[in-house]
Amino acid sequence: MILRIEHLGIAVNNMENANRLFTSLLGTPNYKVETVESEMVSTSFFKVGESKIELVEATNPESPIAKFIAKKGEGIHHVAFEVDDIRQMMQQLREQGFQLLSDEPKKGADNKLICFLHPKSTNGVLVELCQEIR
Amino acid sequence: MILRIEHLGIAVNNMENANRLFTSLLGTPNYKVETVESEMVSTSFFKVGESKIELVEATNPESPIAKFIAKKGEGIHHVAFEVDDIRQMMQQLREQGFQLLSDEPKKGADNKLICFLHPKSTNGVLVELCQEIR
Repeated sequence: MILRIEHLGIAVNNMENANRLFTSLLGTPNYKVETVESEMVSTSFFKVGESKIELVEATNPESPIAKFIAKKGEGIHHVAFEVDDIRQMMQQLREQGFQLLSDEPKKGADNKLICFLHPKSTNGVLVELCQEIR
Repeated sequence: MILRIEHLGIAVNNMENANRLFTSLLGTPNYKVETVESEMVSTSFFKVGESKIELVEATNPESPIAKFIAKKGEGIHHVAFEVDDIRQMMQQLREQGFQLLSDEPKKGADNKLICFLHPKSTNGVLVELCQEIR
């Protein structure tokens, strides 16, 4: 079951500038930075209500984020929904015809198990499912 | 002050298909549809935690949504933040150097006063501020 928007991922070219800009816009500083080696990104998190804004910068030209920016420019990259049981949700969505980008949940930023859905099966929206690692 | 992600706007080509898809993904049907003549769009709302997903379909080829899809394809179009006082927030953001797309709040969908920020001043993210009309 989908519980809430856990975070909104925003692809940025320059983390220092983006941190300054979102601190100013949201009226609150980031509370955490984290590098995710497997995804070749560095991330920066801001709280907004029950959700987060996650700024994402490529650490390598081969990173999916570098490719996204080259194609579409900076901007909103994905939406992550928190789910209560990621394996059950993945199974259910597969049966409903959604295309998952991995067969098993992967370790993501912020102590989460995650799985992405292919945007071709979700109206062009890159959807991430995530579940806190307990 | 920004309170929460009020909604995430998703540009879609075909509302009927998109409603079916997001009902299936989110596990809940839409609870409202509304046409906003001034923006040349029809909209469909789903609840997710304290936020909403707003599907947006152009009702006219001149609609900003039709132009967005022609340029970037279907997908996430904007993020809307609920604010406690939209006029005060607009004034504050102007002073901080953000570029607003209107001088005064406009009437949006879902009984809201709204104002957009130019994506050039927000890392490519189309940001909407909104405040419930009391």
